[in-house]
Amino acid sequence: MKHRVLPSIAAVTALVALVGCSKSASDSEKAPAGSTAAVEEVRDVAPALAAYHKEKVMKLWQRPGLSDRDRSLVTVAHLIAGGHTAELSFYVEKALDDGVRPREISEAVTHLAFYSGWQNARAAIPGIKSVFAERDVKKSDLPAVQPDLLSLDRDAEKSRDDDVRSNFGDVSPGVVENTRNVLFRDLWLRPDLKPRDRSLVTVVALVTNGQSEQLTYHLGRAMDNGLTATQAGETLNQLAFYAGWPRVFSALPVVKDVLNSRK
Amino acid sequence: MKHRVLPSIAAVTALVALVGCSKSASDSEKAPAGSTAAVEEVRDVAPALAAYHKEKVMKLWQRPGLSDRDRSLVTVAHLIAGGHTAELSFYVEKALDDGVRPREISEAVTHLAFYSGWQNARAAIPGIKSVFAERDVKKSDLPAVQPDLLSLDRDAEKSRDDDVRSNFGDVSPGVVENTRNVLFRDLWLRPDLKPRDRSLVTVVALVTNGQSEQLTYHLGRAMDNGLTATQAGETLNQLAFYAGWPRVFSALPVVKDVLNSRK
Amino acid sequence: MKHRVLPSIAAVTALVALVGCSKSASDSEKAPAGSTAAVEEVRDVAPALAAYHKEKVMKLWQRPGLSDRDRSLVTVAHLIAGGHTAELSFYVEKALDDGVRPREISEAVTHLAFYSGWQNARAAIPGIKSVFAERDVKKSDLPAVQPDLLSLDRDAEKSRDDDVRSNFGDVSPGVVENTRNVLFRDLWLRPDLKPRDRSLVTVVALVTNGQSEQLTYHLGRAMDNGLTATQAGETLNQLAFYAGWPRVFSALPVVKDVLNSRK
Repeated sequence: MKHRVLPSIAAVTALVALVGCSKSASDSEKAPAGSTAAVEEVRDVAPALAAYHKEKVMKLWQRPGLSDRDRSLVTVAHLIAGGHTAELSFYVEKALDDGVRPREISEAVTHLAFYSGWQNARAAIPGIKSVFAERDVKKSDLPAVQPDLLSLDRDAEKSRDDDVRSNFGDVSPGVVENTRNVLFRDLWLRPDLKPRDRSLVTVVALVTNGQSEQLTYHLGRAMDNGLTATQAGETLNQLAFYAGWPRVFSALPVVKDVLNSRK
Repeated sequence: MKHRVLPSIAAVTALVALVGCSKSASDSEKAPAGSTAAVEEVRDVAPALAAYHKEKVMKLWQRPGLSDRDRSLVTVAHLIAGGHTAELSFYVEKALDDGVRPREISEAVTHLAFYSGWQNARAAIPGIKSVFAERDVKKSDLPAVQPDLLSLDRDAEKSRDDDVRSNFGDVSPGVVENTRNVLFRDLWLRPDLKPRDRSLVTVVALVTNGQSEQLTYHLGRAMDNGLTATQAGETLNQLAFYAGWPRVFSALPVVKDVLNSRK
Repeated sequence: MKHRVLPSIAAVTALVALVGCSKSASDSEKAPAGSTAAVEEVRDVAPALAAYHKEKVMKLWQRPGLSDRDRSLVTVAHLIAGGHTAELSFYVEKALDDGVRPREISEAVTHLAFYSGWQNARAAIPGIKSVFAERDVKKSDLPAVQPDLLSLDRDAEKSRDDDVRSNFGDVSPGVVENTRNVLFRDLWLRPDLKPRDRSLVTVVALVTNGQSEQLTYHLGRAMDNGLTATQAGETLNQLAFYAGWPRVFSALPVVKDVLNSRK
């Protein structure tokens, strides 16, 4: 392939569509899950995949067991946690349409910086910012930097902290201290994402990034915070299509153990 | 957001060269594994890496134990499963040169949407599309959406389904149902990627994404479908250079157990 | 790096800011961790995240237990190993300011091609190249392709090779041979990254990519090569903020076992 002169906006638009890692102005990329241009592009390479998307993935959203609102929160959390920016704007728009509030999306990004790494949260900012601008989301629609925190369950937190401190206090005092002060006495108490949703977002990040070994604690916490067994099972079904089957099959035994332990 | 006029092709070209995550018109990015521009760029930062690439990675392709065609299929599957788009066009071209058919690449993308997540498959579309366009691949060269399916091994499938259902039917009925109806009674029976190759692509995805815990089943299935022990071992050697040593060393004990169990 | 006039700098800047996966000339992307533009962008979506970044992440760098130079090496290794290119230039510049030498960064890239996969190393090249160009790094500042190698500890290497060969020689002779000839009798003996730093970079790659099962060997090797327990613990604290809490909590039990085994 030779250097070509790209004189025009058309070429740039095509480029953006091609790179598949951008968040931008082109239609094919703004509406990857449904627009004609996006479906055509998939069809040109993998007609069967385009058909599966239409017949299986889109119908997934109509299943009972998990509300549209929860499916949207799960899917957006998956995209952020996995560093997948190409379809993020589309699903953030859908999430807003499905009743997820801007302050909840904002708070999910903040939460996932700690639970899926700073770079993944940072990468999600432009795609979300463009949707917020389009929807005219105002500063006052976003969480305060220092809101009144939810009240701390001191006994549960003492038990958690004692456990981590006795296990790892000698290994990494910094981690133990920050887990306590930054995460469990601050981040988790921020009010703009309900504890149940914060836990759900965490569970999604763990499944997406293949960290089943951390699921036991966080799924238990999610269920303490109100996530039902049916919702947990249907979250896995949603993630099978988005994060892939192997991630979900690695999570299933852990989820089963957590459900059994609570019977 | 509206289209804006970008008048400077130089700036855009430079950007594309810099981003390293695109599939586009620049030479350095079209032929990353061999072009002068690509080698020069690596050499400017890491001369030793450029030398290793020339002396070790390229010679890897001349080893016995795995055909060029299989090495290409393995490498393309690795790139798709890992969401690595920058060198995808180069290796898709090489795969076609090595005898992988367009319909096989198309089917591998569809398969990997389920085995490495929708976003990774989606990200691979533009790079493959551009090669297909260059090579004048026609619609008729691609798999049908609804082909005649391969015949189902009803006993093996009943055993698999019984196992998954008894284990996880109460945890996530949706996953159990979709695993049966979408994957094993549909996707796996699609004829345009042979079961042995479909299994090989699956094994590669599991190694690339660090899911050794799912390897036992799928490597056994791959060998049932005709993959030899030598090919399995040499696939790991190929992946050591592309996916990195730790992924392969995490897979080795599982592969060893599978090989031993079949002796 | 200075602002350069690109005929439509605004448009290109917007694009670059949007894509979130580039390495380029724009300020927002050049100084993601501190520039006004970058902080503003985060603040527009997640004001709390911007505040956490300022109050927690930036203060992390002032903690005792790990030098600025080591924190920079750890952070750059994390970014390369994770395929995170958006903030790479910023942290490579910081690393150079903190005393990491260009030849050490070059050698870390080469090393990480083998320990986190070729594609991640390749993706890091453009961002590092741009910083090297700015800083006027010369060819003579980079490692030789074939330097005089460090002397091999023949007993330790024989023990390692015997172990791998007896375990996996029948499974993948190619991997066993390349592990010996390419990695431990060549790459690891290259002099421009000290064995302690080479091990530290390896440990970071394993934590970032969730490969705790490979940590026992490499953390032990790192400590044999001079990494202290305090530095190991503080490396985890650094990575908690950059790679996310779950990665670090999966590593903690392994690190604890290694530390205990050496008491």
